[in-house]
Amino acid sequence: MSGAGQKAPFSALGPGAEFDLIRRFLERGEAPAGAGADTVLVGPGDDCAVVDAGAPLALSTDLTVEGVHFRREWLAPEEVGYRATAAALSDLAAMAATPVAVLVSLGLPPERKEEATALMAGVRRAAHDCGAAVIGGDLSATAGPLFLDVVVAGAAPRPVLRGGARPGDGVWVTGWLGGAAAAVAAWLEGGVPSALARTAFAAPVPRLREAQWLARRLELSALIDLSDGLAGDAAHLAAASGVAIELEPQSLPLHAALGAGSEAARRMALGGGEDYELCFAAGDEAVRELAPEFTAAFGIPLTRVGAVRAGSGVTILGAGGQGELRQPPAGFRHFDGTAP
Amino acid sequence: MSGAGQKAPFSALGPGAEFDLIRRFLERGEAPAGAGADTVLVGPGDDCAVVDAGAPLALSTDLTVEGVHFRREWLAPEEVGYRATAAALSDLAAMAATPVAVLVSLGLPPERKEEATALMAGVRRAAHDCGAAVIGGDLSATAGPLFLDVVVAGAAPRPVLRGGARPGDGVWVTGWLGGAAAAVAAWLEGGVPSALARTAFAAPVPRLREAQWLARRLELSALIDLSDGLAGDAAHLAAASGVAIELEPQSLPLHAALGAGSEAARRMALGGGEDYELCFAAGDEAVRELAPEFTAAFGIPLTRVGAVRAGSGVTILGAGGQGELRQPPAGFRHFDGTAP
Repeated sequence: MSGAGQKAPFSALGPGAEFDLIRRFLERGEAPAGAGADTVLVGPGDDCAVVDAGAPLALSTDLTVEGVHFRREWLAPEEVGYRATAAALSDLAAMAATPVAVLVSLGLPPERKEEATALMAGVRRAAHDCGAAVIGGDLSATAGPLFLDVVVAGAAPRPVLRGGARPGDGVWVTGWLGGAAAAVAAWLEGGVPSALARTAFAAPVPRLREAQWLARRLELSALIDLSDGLAGDAAHLAAASGVAIELEPQSLPLHAALGAGSEAARRMALGGGEDYELCFAAGDEAVRELAPEFTAAFGIPLTRVGAVRAGSGVTILGAGGQGELRQPPAGFRHFDGTAP
Repeated sequence: MSGAGQKAPFSALGPGAEFDLIRRFLERGEAPAGAGADTVLVGPGDDCAVVDAGAPLALSTDLTVEGVHFRREWLAPEEVGYRATAAALSDLAAMAATPVAVLVSLGLPPERKEEATALMAGVRRAAHDCGAAVIGGDLSATAGPLFLDVVVAGAAPRPVLRGGARPGDGVWVTGWLGGAAAAVAAWLEGGVPSALARTAFAAPVPRLREAQWLARRLELSALIDLSDGLAGDAAHLAAASGVAIELEPQSLPLHAALGAGSEAARRMALGGGEDYELCFAAGDEAVRELAPEFTAAFGIPLTRVGAVRAGSGVTILGAGGQGELRQPPAGFRHFDGTAP
């Protein structure tokens, strides 16, 4: 669904305690009857909001907190800045928007203020890689863990939302899944991730050019980026579109860091978050036809991982029968103490 | 100086260790040679950055951290949300911009997640008071103190920057100064602030309508909002404009919470931060002529507090002689441990 010029309601989120809290956090966030009322093209709940600022501008903010989204010993400060910014820019990819500008607020323990320069170097690297300028920010000491809040703005003449998936569409993903989760799993087990897995976690590539390429050539009915994991993000897409999604674990493009296609590897590719690949719904025929050209252009595959059906929720089609996904994967349940 | 259509460099900041760190934090933040390059009208260092999104859009982000910007026992959660958002919106006032949208990222200790609803009610109240919609945000647990990062976007067809003050201009402020500092002082001494002082701290009013009114009627050569305190913010304005500013403590419009015009009261009005009044440079004649109409419209005074001279830095003209302000007031030196 293209949202330019039409006002979208609050996009529904999938199940989970974390999302209950986010729902409450953003509910009643609609435009008031003032200046803002006419200018909000897409409200809360999608990957970005979109305001009419002469032309449609997508805005999003993405928070990274040490001890929640990463542990200090996993990443160098420059990588922390890069990764936080890449994750924020991925929200622009999820709207098929073109990055314009980045602002960053940094909370830093006073005894670690020498890290600010490296953190900002990482922020700038991620922004400049995508053609965006770092135009502002804020800085404060904190008695708690380091955090970065990265704000992104991008031109979004024809934003692709989460809410337009239709029964009969195929569900497709870019790239490979589970690499970041493999790194986190290795760290949590006290080990050292492989270089491949570590890179997937520390240096994700926001799929901005890929999203624009796809949006120009295909009628994408819904688009989201994979930050919460395929199962969780498919649930958001299903809820926003008012449809059911069936996922086929046997079809998942497993990241090379996962090794052989074991059951554990598929679980990681299905449930692990922060791959920052794209997931979209579209007619299968058209995608199949374009897939070789996509791979030639970007060096990554397009893979069909499931289908849109009438109904609601996400169903995982398993070798040993099928079952509805009853709870979201653990990675993003920040308030349950299950996060890194 | 009006910045629309002309590219502004990094605005210079006044002296102080805190600003050294912010300078480093934002330096080399110019637009890259990519998509962002043509669209950044005002870069880092002013109250907001301005991007060309079809029409000029001002963007700013403002961070509030518990234990740095306020203490938990001082404010109710709703007030924390309101105050953080009002402070962010004040940056739009400082550009004479019209608020459009607010996004907010919230870091919350897991055991305090029930505060999210009240915090967001405060955010919405501040936003809706100014005609802005709350269009998005992010939420994370944190093992540290609560924090909010509030992003504001506003239409800025003719942004007024910090950098255009000219020798011969008068320096003027809206409203009364020192009220918020009086509340902080009372709390830090273990007392209870007066209702007047507490309101000044807990419920500042971003001077958005006032700024637009002034910008329509006057040629404002420079404009800033008073977040760091008059002396500190005048130093930013002087540095950005490449001029000196003389401040006259005897002229300051003392907040009623400060009681009689003692030396201590004047120090508080001069150095205390977070009044969120406006400070601007303009020709005295024109301002004097408009002042009664301004007061009739908004119920607050316009007061001349000093003058722009050739040179650099801020000079405080004292009864007992005059001296250059050698260090910024303590309120905003977050990394020195002198903040609340």
